Order: sequence, then structure tokens, then C-alpha cells
Amino acid sequence: VEARDTEALDAIIDTLHPADVADILEQISGPERREFLDLYDGDILGEVLSELDEGLREEVINALQPDDLTAAVRELESDDVVDLLEDLEEPQQERILEALPASDRAAVEQALTYPEFSAGRLMQPEVVRAPEHWRVGDAIDYMRSDTAYLPEQFYHVVLVDPMMRPTGYVTLGKLLASPRETPLMEIVEDSFRTVPVDEAEGEVAYAFNQYHLISMPVVDNGGQLVGMITIDDAMVVLDEEAEEDILRLAGVGENRISDRVWDTTKRRFPWLAVNLVTAILASIVISQFEAVIAQVVALAVLMPIVASMGGNAGTQSLTVAVRAIATKDLTGANVWRVVRREVLVGLVNGLFFALAMGIVGLIWFGSMQLGYVLAIAMVVNMVVAGLAGILIPVALEKIGVDPALASGAFVTTVTDVVGFFAFLGLAAIMLL
Amino acid sequence: VEARDTEALDAIIDTLHPADVADILEQISGPERREFLDLYDGDILGEVLSELDEGLREEVINALQPDDLTAAVRELESDDVVDLLEDLEEPQQERILEALPASDRAAVEQALTYPEFSAGRLMQPEVVRAPEHWRVGDAIDYMRSDTAYLPEQFYHVVLVDPMMRPTGYVTLGKLLASPRETPLMEIVEDSFRTVPVDEAEGEVAYAFNQYHLISMPVVDNGGQLVGMITIDDAMVVLDEEAEEDILRLAGVGENRISDRVWDTTKRRFPWLAVNLVTAILASIVISQFEAVIAQVVALAVLMPIVASMGGNAGTQSLTVAVRAIATKDLTGANVWRVVRREVLVGLVNGLFFALAMGIVGLIWFGSMQLGYVLAIAMVVNMVVAGLAGILIPVALEKIGVDPALASGAFVTTVTDVVGFFAFLGLAAIMLL
Repeated sequence: VEARDTEALDAIIDTLHPADVADILEQISGPERREFLDLYDGDILGEVLSELDEGLREEVINALQPDDLTAAVRELESDDVVDLLEDLEEPQQERILEALPASDRAAVEQALTYPEFSAGRLMQPEVVRAPEHWRVGDAIDYMRSDTAYLPEQFYHVVLVDPMMRPTGYVTLGKLLASPRETPLMEIVEDSFRTVPVDEAEGEVAYAFNQYHLISMPVVDNGGQLVGMITIDDAMVVLDEEAEEDILRLAGVGENRISDRVWDTTKRRFPWLAVNLVTAILASIVISQFEAVIAQVVALAVLMPIVASMGGNAGTQSLTVAVRAIATKDLTGANVWRVVRREVLVGLVNGLFFALAMGIVGLIWFGSMQLGYVLAIAMVVNMVVAGLAGILIPVALEKIGVDPALASGAFVTTVTDVVGFFAFLGLAAIMLL
Repeated sequence: VEARDTEALDAIIDTLHPADVADILEQISGPERREFLDLYDGDILGEVLSELDEGLREEVINALQPDDLTAAVRELESDDVVDLLEDLEEPQQERILEALPASDRAAVEQALTYPEFSAGRLMQPEVVRAPEHWRVGDAIDYMRSDTAYLPEQFYHVVLVDPMMRPTGYVTLGKLLASPRETPLMEIVEDSFRTVPVDEAEGEVAYAFNQYHLISMPVVDNGGQLVGMITIDDAMVVLDEEAEEDILRLAGVGENRISDRVWDTTKRRFPWLAVNLVTAILASIVISQFEAVIAQVVALAVLMPIVASMGGNAGTQSLTVAVRAIATKDLTGANVWRVVRREVLVGLVNGLFFALAMGIVGLIWFGSMQLGYVLAIAMVVNMVVAGLAGILIPVALEKIGVDPALASGAFVTTVTDVVGFFAFLGLAAIMLL
């Protein structure tokens, strides 16, 4: 790029995989990126665009010449164009739609009528289908005759009844290995299941992972075949969902490493603001005991320990719970067993650390009483942490809030308040 | 199960998918599980075993009659048996190996010679291969003639040179759609790449996701084809890796919802112990300022706010960093740009919250000075949080420690110590 040699750059870039080029674009700085885009006019721009982080796509699309953009988008399959379009503003969407050939444009516009993050957005409309009564030979002849209409990637031939409702599928492997006269119905797979077009993409990814599927036919409300989702798209969703959980648990929403300072600041601000309210709440609890602290300053030294241990134990329980809810391992059937277990774990670990802290209190400040207070407060807070760490995410899930998003704030509020209150309250009773 | 009706139970269970049966086993209690296993003798026990959480497998295998276990294992493909075996103790491994037919046993024993979590453990040894000079018709005839040896699931035919080194692959779709006389070399895919047999499974999953692969041939040190990894196995690994990151970030290691109380307690203990040391370190910092706190008790009330805000901001930065390292979006090339951005984000958010806290300090305690102290300490700690949140995971990665595992403890230690020190130190200077 530095030498401003367009041809050399094109030659290098075109040997790379589009996903790697997108990674490079994400890692260089803004001005470097603009210079790169001015220079590069190779063949894989469309695929690079669809690999790019959403935050950068808009910037890159705006930086492109209309001609380059048109050429880039025409290379893509319609489901990739949908993916590209859904995060863009109206005028940019228009520009790209106009660049498409009419048939592709219709497919993309159809996909955009389905709800965001639904199976309909994820699927490709092209499906290789065969009437139920066909034999292996019929299916092979049909595919040979019509190669222009075959999807880029496909792994199953879907059997449909006369109403175009899918009733089973056959793997290409079985098709190739079976004699031509075998009826397709005889070699269908057990794993066959369909998904409604408005199903959430997270559920789709879960089904692929749970049932080891490779492709899943998509049906509309009438049960008719409208498209096909393949495992590679499901894998991307699964990866995104896990990423979302990780980032939400840490209170950073959609924040990516390639976001700019101001976007990042805005994305992190709300969670920090929630945390500030939480922290002030804890401070109000502490302020109720100012008189006690003024008499025994050691309390101020030791009180963060109880709160911090509770906070950590709570985060442990809550993370396991959030993850188990996401993977459907925590349900109404076992929630009370899990709660009992978390409380027991809190109790056992609480007792260990109570013993440790009792000894620390005794040695450091030479007070048996202080040791008792620390120990009791520790046990109380760790049991509460276990309880809150399970019940809060389960309750949030029940009322329809993503437990990954909001649990952390609630759980630490509980452990801070209980921690300070138990420790300082006990101290007020036992030490004064 | 309650009615102890074996036949009815078998009938119901055999209509379910093995993965769902495994989920049921994970969610019921221990005694219910034993009763279930005594009663059930349906056909899908082997697959249920391989879907089961690792923590439960040992329990279930021990509860099974040797005959049932033998029958169960014989149903499985060799890569599933490997997956089942690698988490078991020696005597159980022996029992299962003895139950296998000799050819499967050899394949399983071969797989177990590869390092744990390597491509070799993940692959299936059966690959459909064809000499480079073959035409489409040759490949189809070969598959038809030899159906007994075809893998259960396969999506590509791998071309090999005379030394058995893979040189490309052809999708079954292209094979079906092309005329019989087309040379296979003309319809190979661009996406072709191989993976060494000792590559880490995390890298394999990353490659599948990054390059949208469906299958990847595995080669030994001589470059010869030894097996094939398919996307469904890579998807499971990707899911496990994300889960591992989530759980490690929260300090719960391998903890699952179905683990028992004592296992859970042991797994969570080490991180809580680390946190205790951290908390005591923070307490030691506070204890240096006992005299100041004794004079201005308001400091004890407000000090947790500064530490808590820093801890949260640090966790945000560190989570984004850990995730970006895992997805290879944070590398040597952009680390300084990211550090600069994190510091700026910390500064901007720090200034906002400094203003807010300055006002809180002023109104609550009526002291302009206290407001200043809070505000300055807040800015300092949030900038430090941004810095530590990036540099600590990057440094851990450099020295070969998983940043997800250890970053949290280090970052909160830094933000606690800096938070308390900055706040109380400034207070000592400005208020006394």
C-alpha cells in the first residue's frame, strides 16, 4: 500500500482469503483503510465486505466508488447480500439493491420481509428438491440437466409432497452410493427436521448443534418449503450468540475491538452508570454504620473483603446459570435442585473462607470478636451469592429479559448490600 | 419411569433424539438416573452416552451392566468412541476397548496416540479419496462399488497424488452435476486446505469458521492423508471453546450445571482463594490510611465506589480483549492502537463519572474538597482500568497463559489497589 502500486496490491490481495483481507482491514487504522480502498480494485471486494465487522461495513461502503460497490455486490449470493443490507441505513440499502440484477433483488427484498434474526434471514432460497416418488436416477438426471440453478453449496436433496411440503431428505453421499433404481424414500435420513421461517436464529443454531444437522429445510406458515439453512451459517450464528453472551456478561453490549473511541465509550457507559447506582446503594448501606466505623476503623479495612468474596461467588453462580439457560440445561424441571446445590456450595466454600478470614481477623487485629464477625458475614454473603446467582437469571429469563445482559448488576448489588450490611451490622451488635 | 414399565419407557425414549435423552438424564436426580438406567434397554444408549456431559458419563457407565455397555459402544462410530474414552479412567477404557470389534479397536487406539485436543482426536479415519487423474464417472463407479466402506457422513471426495498426499477436493454436488467425462481436477474447490494431525482443535474450529469450510483433510508429518474433519465436529469444538472462555472469565473453570456439590465446590474454590488474596491486598492498602479514615469517616463510605467503577471498566476492557485475542482480531499489529483507544475510552467515561461523583460528594457530604478527590481518583482509576484491561491479557497470551483464565484476578487487583490508593492518598493530601 505504501508504494501505491495498485497492480502489486491486487495481486497480493487476490491470493488471500476474503476473511483474512477483512481481518487486515479491521486491524489497520482509518486513513490506511481509505488508502487501501482507493488503491484496491481486485475481484474479491464483495466477499471481503460480507466478512467485515458490522461496525466497519458502513465506513467501507461509503468510501467505495459506486461502480466498485455495484461490481462487488453482484458477486455475492443473495443470503450474503441480505446479511450485508440489514445493518445499513436506508439510502445505502437502496444503492445496493439497485445494483443487483432483478431476480436477485426480488430474493433479497423477500428475505428482508422476514423478521430480523429469524430463520428467513439466514436461509438461501435455492433448494434442490425432488418429488417423493422419484428414484435415485431421476434425481441425478434432474441435477445434471439443470446445473445453472444449483446452489453453490448443498448437501441434501429435499423430498416434497405435491403441496410442496418437505417430507424428508437424502444426503448426496447416499444418492451417489445407491443404485439408480432405488426409490428416494428408502434412503431418507432419520435426522430430518424442518424449521418455521420466523424461528429465532439462536434456536436454529441450537438445533444444528444439538442434533448434529448439516442442513435444515425452512417452511412457511402453510408448511411449504421456502428455503434451506446450511450448517456453515448456523455455525456463524452460534459463534455470534456465544460472543454476545460473553460481552453482555461483562456489560459491554455489542462492543468490538474495531469500534471507534466514541462508539466504545457510548456502548460501555450505560453499564457503568448502572454500576454507579449499585455502588452508591452500597455506600448508603455503609453510611448507616458511620458511627461504628468511626469507633473501629478496622471495619473499614476489612469490609471490602466480604463484599468482594460475595461478588465473586455470585458471578460464578450466575455465569454457570446464564450459560445453562442458553444451552437449555437449566429448566423448570431442575431449577430447585440447582438452587439447593448452589446454596450448599456457597455454604461449604463460605465455611472454608470464614475460617480463613476469622484467623486473618484474629492475627491482624488481635480481636477474636472481629474474627467471628468476619466469619459469620462471609458465610451469610456466600450463601446469598449462590442463591442470587441462580434465582436472578432464572427470574429475568421468565420475564423475558436476556439474563446475560442484566444479571450481573442485580447480583453484585445484592452481594454488596448484603455483604456490607451483614458485616457492619454484626459488628455493631458484637463489637460495641 | 415411576410405573417401572420397561417396554413403555423404551418405546417413548426411542422416539426421542439421543441428545434430548442425554439432556433429560442430566436434569433428573442421581437416584432417578439409576432407576432409569436399570429400566431402559432400548437401542440408542450408545448415542445417548456420547451426548452426555463428561461429568455424568463416568457415573452412567459405571451403572450400566457390562452387556448393555458392550452393545451400546458397538453402535458408535470410531470418532465418537474416542471422544467417549478420552475422559474415562484406565479400567473403564479397557472395558470399552474390549467390547469393540478388532478393526474399530485399532482405529480407536490409533486415535488415542494423538495428543488430546488435537485434530487427530477429532477426525474420522474413513475418507473417500480418488487419484488425481480420475474423472467424475470413475469416482461415482468407485463409490457405488464400495458402499460398505463409505463414511456415515461425507461431503467431499479428496484427490490424492500417488504418494497419498491430498491435493484438492470435489464437492458431492459438483460431482453429481457434472458430466461423467469431466476430469475431477477441473471441478476442485478453491476453499481446499489441509490441517496437520497434531494441530490444536481450537485452531481447527477457528479455520472452519473463518473460511466457511465443510470438511478439512487431515495430514500427518509426511503430508499424507490420514483422516477428515467435518464441520459438525468443528461446530461442537467452537461451542466448547466459547463456553470455556465464558466460564474461565467468571473463574469457574470447567464447572457445569450437572456437576455435584463437592465437585462444584472444589472447582470454584481456587478462584475464590485468589480473590481472597487480592481482597486482602486491597485491605492492606486501606489499612495504610486508617488514620485518615478515622478522621473523615465519609471516606470509608465512598471508597468502594471508586474501586467498583474501576473494576467494572477493567472487566469491560479485558473481556473485549480476551474475546479479540480468541478470534485473532487483536494482534501485534494493532495492539498499540487498541491500547490508545482503551485509555481514551477510560478517560472520557472517567470524566463523565468524575463529574457525577464530584456532585454526589458535594451534595451528600457538603464538601467541595471531597468532590475533587472522588473525581480525580475516578479518572485515574478508569484510565488505569483501560490500560490494565488490555495489557494484562495481551501479556498473559505472550507468555502462554490462557488470558481468559487469569486476567480477571490481575485486573481487579490493579483496579482495587489503584482505586483505594488514589482515593485515600489524595484524601490524605487534600483533606488533612
